[in-house]
Amino acid sequence: MVLQPIIDIASVCALKGIKNAILSPGSRCAPITLSFSRHPDINCKTISDERSAAFIALGMAQQLEQPVVLVCTSGSAAYNYAPAIAEAFFQQVPLIVITADRPPEWIDQWDGQTIRQTEIYGKHVKGFFQFPDEFGHPDKVWHANRIMNEAINLSNQFPAGPVHINIPLREPFYPENSESFDFSKTPRIIEPVYSKADLSEKDKQNLISSLSTFKKILIVPGQQKPDAAIQNILDKLVRNGNAVVVADTISNMQSDDTINYHDHFVGNGNLNQLLNPDIVLTFGKSIISKNLKIFLRNSKAEHWHIQPAGYVPDTYRGLTKIIHCQVLEVLNLMNQTLKSEFSFVSSWKKSENTVQENFDNILENAEFGEYRAISTCLKAIPPSSKIHLANSMAVRYVNFFGKREHEIFCNRGTSGIDGSNSTAIGCAFAVEEFVTLVTGDMAFFYDRNAFWHNYRISNLRIILLNNHAGGIFRLIEGPSKQPELEEYFETNQKLDGKSLAHEFGFGYHISTNMESLKIGLVDFYTKSDSPKILEIQSESSKNAEILKWVKSKINELF
Amino acid sequence: MVLQPIIDIASVCALKGIKNAILSPGSRCAPITLSFSRHPDINCKTISDERSAAFIALGMAQQLEQPVVLVCTSGSAAYNYAPAIAEAFFQQVPLIVITADRPPEWIDQWDGQTIRQTEIYGKHVKGFFQFPDEFGHPDKVWHANRIMNEAINLSNQFPAGPVHINIPLREPFYPENSESFDFSKTPRIIEPVYSKADLSEKDKQNLISSLSTFKKILIVPGQQKPDAAIQNILDKLVRNGNAVVVADTISNMQSDDTINYHDHFVGNGNLNQLLNPDIVLTFGKSIISKNLKIFLRNSKAEHWHIQPAGYVPDTYRGLTKIIHCQVLEVLNLMNQTLKSEFSFVSSWKKSENTVQENFDNILENAEFGEYRAISTCLKAIPPSSKIHLANSMAVRYVNFFGKREHEIFCNRGTSGIDGSNSTAIGCAFAVEEFVTLVTGDMAFFYDRNAFWHNYRISNLRIILLNNHAGGIFRLIEGPSKQPELEEYFETNQKLDGKSLAHEFGFGYHISTNMESLKIGLVDFYTKSDSPKILEIQSESSKNAEILKWVKSKINELF
Repeated sequence: MVLQPIIDIASVCALKGIKNAILSPGSRCAPITLSFSRHPDINCKTISDERSAAFIALGMAQQLEQPVVLVCTSGSAAYNYAPAIAEAFFQQVPLIVITADRPPEWIDQWDGQTIRQTEIYGKHVKGFFQFPDEFGHPDKVWHANRIMNEAINLSNQFPAGPVHINIPLREPFYPENSESFDFSKTPRIIEPVYSKADLSEKDKQNLISSLSTFKKILIVPGQQKPDAAIQNILDKLVRNGNAVVVADTISNMQSDDTINYHDHFVGNGNLNQLLNPDIVLTFGKSIISKNLKIFLRNSKAEHWHIQPAGYVPDTYRGLTKIIHCQVLEVLNLMNQTLKSEFSFVSSWKKSENTVQENFDNILENAEFGEYRAISTCLKAIPPSSKIHLANSMAVRYVNFFGKREHEIFCNRGTSGIDGSNSTAIGCAFAVEEFVTLVTGDMAFFYDRNAFWHNYRISNLRIILLNNHAGGIFRLIEGPSKQPELEEYFETNQKLDGKSLAHEFGFGYHISTNMESLKIGLVDFYTKSDSPKILEIQSESSKNAEILKWVKSKINELF
Repeated sequence: MVLQPIIDIASVCALKGIKNAILSPGSRCAPITLSFSRHPDINCKTISDERSAAFIALGMAQQLEQPVVLVCTSGSAAYNYAPAIAEAFFQQVPLIVITADRPPEWIDQWDGQTIRQTEIYGKHVKGFFQFPDEFGHPDKVWHANRIMNEAINLSNQFPAGPVHINIPLREPFYPENSESFDFSKTPRIIEPVYSKADLSEKDKQNLISSLSTFKKILIVPGQQKPDAAIQNILDKLVRNGNAVVVADTISNMQSDDTINYHDHFVGNGNLNQLLNPDIVLTFGKSIISKNLKIFLRNSKAEHWHIQPAGYVPDTYRGLTKIIHCQVLEVLNLMNQTLKSEFSFVSSWKKSENTVQENFDNILENAEFGEYRAISTCLKAIPPSSKIHLANSMAVRYVNFFGKREHEIFCNRGTSGIDGSNSTAIGCAFAVEEFVTLVTGDMAFFYDRNAFWHNYRISNLRIILLNNHAGGIFRLIEGPSKQPELEEYFETNQKLDGKSLAHEFGFGYHISTNMESLKIGLVDFYTKSDSPKILEIQSESSKNAEILKWVKSKINELF
């Protein structure tokens, strides 16, 4: 018979507010699969490729802001979760990763589907828990319940992240027909209540007094979800001339008041002096703009980072203060105290305006390629659509286009290309709105198993930028000069989306110029039963030329 | 400029006999990529999906019996290698896994493609080496050279396996046009010379005297490559009535003298008494037959295992002696001493003959399905073709069919379905002969990125058993009784091979009955520029019925 603490795994999850589980098929994990699939309050989906399964769970958890459960069988299945778990760890997305395992006495005995699963995700989970392998002693039942509670609490606690529970199981894995399979009505729940950390009056005064010594204040929000309250204060700070806010597309903090075209002009030698801050205030996670990163590293400005808890990296090599507090509280404080020199603020605004006023015009004069295609597509995406950007060129392109109304997601935890499709599908599972994935061909085909399941994703739209290569390598100085460019860097992949669309019954339109692109966009967002792919084919070498040309035209403005 | 110890990585590998590297595209790894791709004695291929890349390397190393190098960029790329690395570890296949990394000061600083790569493969590599990140001090140059030597020696040393070298790299990653990129002519090489371990005369006498006390001697070779010398002695032992040799298909030790149909009759209650050994002698790695495993576990026989070095599992729960010695030496010794009772030997032979004489006839009376299709295919595969069997049903089926002339491979290290295609392709890269992959639909589509590259694999033939599901679950008592069977266990996948074949330009033939199968086989092994897929479609539920029916017919014989 299946033992009660195993049956109750889903009960504890449900009572702690978890609503979704992504299961992958297997025999060893069957009791856990049954626990979740039979629980009335948990929605389950089954995804066969564990690599995709884990990114799908990540995409869901990202939207829902609650942990999603993953369940897989023993053996190498667990390792296929690893890329997504690393992404979740660095992107701080909560996941409850449950792996079935053989009982300890059978590890390393040359039985099938057995690897060394304890602590298999190393330093990429917030915690590892080894479940009891039998429940003869009552303490084991307590231990099992405690593990589930601790794991979920740890996953949720700021900064959120994945936790791993490894569960050894002995046969039988399935209940007999005659057997009951009932959830305990009231498993013990450990509920965490969090207090809000307030700065002391003394600390506040110290911060205010320190802040008042700076005259060129740059605020750089990192990757995060939209937050109206924070946005509101940021905009107010800008409008009052207190500070300059530079917002990458993944910050979801772009507005008419923020600097959004910075990727085109920061680092320009003629502007460095004018734009150089004396302090950089940051919150959120990473930024995407490499130009901005290098500019800030070279600026010699002090860097203060605001974050309620957890480790803080020294991204710009100038970190001198970590303010462990709610972002909003510190921003409110700044609202009263920050003051930037007019020349500093206006230099940023002027540079921004210069690009903003000329960018569309420059682009319209460029040849057709990915650059113009993305521009046209972005205008057609309904503002309510979530946008998922794949690494590596898709997200860089979109960062050139200034303010987005859309909520933007991108796997910038590890910046891998390995799970962009799956993450977008997880998002499509979790929301009603359209989800638009903008991706290059390398990321798209790498993760094609994302589509290998039987669930409806009618709200998914895919803009596939196919240059038949890892186009980014042509844009980097080094590789483009090497004779090995095409074979070992770009890799020259030959697929297009047509066959895949046919295979999965997706809508499909191919564009190779502006006319066919516009035709493709006409009904791209009309409702449909299936996802739609809008493929834009272009040449990698031409895209590189266009990027260089646009860059040179913008440089001429300064 | 690219530093000399980085350039020399490929030099040391080449001088230590390594001839192949599988590279995956990336920027951080560029200096290593250039080192290998520019070295005249190393063949390089570039594979974009690191999960496939690593299984391809495994498939090559398995054939070549020498390490194959893997090179990937920093970040989650490394984690996509993990499933294949676990397989290589347990299957004892040598791999040199080289991951590029950011230098230590940039770890955890929210830069792109950065994870915590040190010891990332945990307990699934034989060793982990952190390469120096700069070479200002001459000791660092010594250290870099030493690491390469140590890693390769460790990977090769019995039992072979994967080693991991993590290499932190700072920009610039590419040489300037004006820069030289020359390999050192004579990097230092540390050459290991191994002695042959001989048993002492006293140990030999003790073994002989112990062995003479047993009267029912079963020899069970585990997974290994064919070995004519071992086969020769085994056959002699059988022909002299000294022992019974039971050979699974993955043992590559099947002959007219060995027991090959055991999967059909061991564990049969009527035979247990007659077949029960008093000692089981094993060498090689795991076996596939679950019936045989359970039979041996229940037998209470003593178990001796022969293996030159390394850890030995207690697979049958009766291990009492580990003989650390060359297998051949111990078998030679046994040749002089073993004696089995006639009734024991003849009971095995009689059971074997009973199945052998009736099996074809029973099968011919079965309905058409996977079982008969595989039987027909196996007869058509040229004996010179290597056969790769996917987990989970393909390898189990083939184990029912008695002796094979073919060399058989299957990823039984972890028994995953995640890399069967890629491993077969690695094999096809390494040999001239045909490589036949027999796979189910789950394993096939799971690893479809195996085909996503531009290299010729004209010697590959794929027999795709498509029942649109994980058919194994219908064959296990437990899940077949659960209402969740179709969604959560079988998963009911909808793809067939036609679209994939079209996408990659492979030959394709579909069979749904014996006539169309025979037509498909007519020119399946004629030479072609591209691989060919022979898809056999059948119904999961019917296959289950046929398996049961055949089993019952065979049981009636006893």
